[in-house]
Amino acid sequence: MAASPWPDGRLIELLGVAHPIVQAPMKGTSTPELAAAVSEAGGLGSLGCAGLDGAAVGALVREMRGRTRGPFNLNFFAHGAVAPDPAAIACARARLAPFYLEKGLGAPPDRVDAAPAAFGEDQLAALLADPPPVVSFHFGVPPGDAVARLRAAGARVLSTATTVAEARALESAGVDAVIAQGWEAGGHRGAFPVTADDAGVGTLALVPQVADAVSVPVIAAGGIGDGRGVAAAFALGAAGVQLGTAFIRCPESSARPAHRAAVEAGRDDSTRLSRAVSGRPARAHRNRYVDAMAAETGALPEYPLMYPFAAPLAADGDPDFQFLLYGQAAALTRAEPAAAVIARLVAEAGAVLARLRGKEQP
Amino acid sequence: MAASPWPDGRLIELLGVAHPIVQAPMKGTSTPELAAAVSEAGGLGSLGCAGLDGAAVGALVREMRGRTRGPFNLNFFAHGAVAPDPAAIACARARLAPFYLEKGLGAPPDRVDAAPAAFGEDQLAALLADPPPVVSFHFGVPPGDAVARLRAAGARVLSTATTVAEARALESAGVDAVIAQGWEAGGHRGAFPVTADDAGVGTLALVPQVADAVSVPVIAAGGIGDGRGVAAAFALGAAGVQLGTAFIRCPESSARPAHRAAVEAGRDDSTRLSRAVSGRPARAHRNRYVDAMAAETGALPEYPLMYPFAAPLAADGDPDFQFLLYGQAAALTRAEPAAAVIARLVAEAGAVLARLRGKEQP
Repeated sequence: MAASPWPDGRLIELLGVAHPIVQAPMKGTSTPELAAAVSEAGGLGSLGCAGLDGAAVGALVREMRGRTRGPFNLNFFAHGAVAPDPAAIACARARLAPFYLEKGLGAPPDRVDAAPAAFGEDQLAALLADPPPVVSFHFGVPPGDAVARLRAAGARVLSTATTVAEARALESAGVDAVIAQGWEAGGHRGAFPVTADDAGVGTLALVPQVADAVSVPVIAAGGIGDGRGVAAAFALGAAGVQLGTAFIRCPESSARPAHRAAVEAGRDDSTRLSRAVSGRPARAHRNRYVDAMAAETGALPEYPLMYPFAAPLAADGDPDFQFLLYGQAAALTRAEPAAAVIARLVAEAGAVLARLRGKEQP
Repeated sequence: MAASPWPDGRLIELLGVAHPIVQAPMKGTSTPELAAAVSEAGGLGSLGCAGLDGAAVGALVREMRGRTRGPFNLNFFAHGAVAPDPAAIACARARLAPFYLEKGLGAPPDRVDAAPAAFGEDQLAALLADPPPVVSFHFGVPPGDAVARLRAAGARVLSTATTVAEARALESAGVDAVIAQGWEAGGHRGAFPVTADDAGVGTLALVPQVADAVSVPVIAAGGIGDGRGVAAAFALGAAGVQLGTAFIRCPESSARPAHRAAVEAGRDDSTRLSRAVSGRPARAHRNRYVDAMAAETGALPEYPLMYPFAAPLAADGDPDFQFLLYGQAAALTRAEPAAAVIARLVAEAGAVLARLRGKEQP
């Protein structure tokens, strides 16, 4: 194997990958085909597993082992149980009633079921029985002693932080590496609490501050669309990168045509954060619903209890109400197989790093 | 002179600087002492000149020539005339009345004067009569044929874009370089229209897309706090960087003690955007007023007509109402003379660039 072109080998060693490039889990868009293709190409393929029970998790681990000998990552949400809040339900009902009326859907739901904790003993037991190479978390510190038990079983554990304080909490919880997710990132922000929409820290500012705050390797996420962003992440002190939007247009993803089209047409400013679909801020394609609800400052139901209110509005395929998640670097992506994405990122980043050697270099 | 450590020489050549580092103009915080110190250290010192008449502009040019033989930059706002909007005034009065009551200030103003265009023939004539090396603009495309006339007179012209579309408009207007200002930046966003607060594009995503869209050199701004951010900007395709927050704590700035203290204590997430002080979104220290007004989605008076409503609330020095501008990388800054800031950025960026050469390099 040739000498590594990567200026930081920590994540390569930690994860056993050839290239320190993580494909973001993207629940609903990732597939075993996509994750395996990324892992076979030398990156870390990931699968969004939120909502799966232990049996399904175990089956996915076995499927992935059959698809690749490389490392792969199963991602879970870390939020706790959520009980319905009558005031928030009333807020959602009032705000969404005109949309329901317009679509002939009657009145919005007047109740939703409580949601259990997203990650519990069932999923943990399955992971411990047959540990995947990597397990990652989103929306907070993994519950209880899950991190220690997963690591003791041989898995590497990653988790997402959107601020320095969250990164410190994750390091204290024992994770092997922190994913520093900046403002630019598509999809759900991994913030622990549901913070104000405009409080997000940009990747360029976040990564070096997180790298200063924790001793574990930092994986930069958010706004990275090509090799320039990859190289920039290493300049900022990251040991690796995570990209999601770059893989949406891959033939191996399960993205619907409308989603692929939105990413293809995506501009730097064609997304905004919205908590009006799921209950947590997520960067999504701007459309009528997302823009209209941006002015709603009331307390909507917490994630995931907002879904039952918003989902019926999108059921007819109306583009004004679709929840199409992607980040601010969509315009830098291409429609190509996952292996080609990885190969291009590696080649582009290598070229940028060579360019940065400066004029005095031969 | 030693070989340049910089991987891109376009801005160095364009501006006649030793280092492609621009000190942001920061109206109200920059001083001739600060700008001259930056220019003497090899960067581009800048002065915020918004609100000055032609005679004052001419005097500043003469003063700067006496302080440095290096290039320097005078910055102007490009917004047009603003007439008071009765509905917006009513909104501001209603929203601010409780604060006024609490402070015993009576009722908020019931009228404000119209504001003239920020940059007009008076200022332009002064600049043409004795052109400074560099003139820069914020808040839109410079009016009329100002760009062409300034360039014909020998000045270099820079202007700020916060999106790809704005960058294209500036290139069409003939500017010599575009400042791509990302979400992380402290102070006023240079956006042309007053866009929704959550629509900002992060620097990491913005810079490569702007670099792809225009042929002139791009100066990256927003979230750059030390040499890591400087090196990252070059990885992203920028030919230079602009930093503001990094110079607030310099002894040469006019920042008040409360401002210096806020930057010193600044964290990644201790700011947010607010249009509730000036009428345009600006990244400022979070305090009671900024946080309370974040929920105000009504149409407040346009910049600068909101100042007369908000300023009285801060007049007593109450920290809950101060307008302390800084960006998301404040925690990376130090209190040191401007020359030391420049020297440190150069040394740090050089070290990062050397590290990025990769393991296979000797």
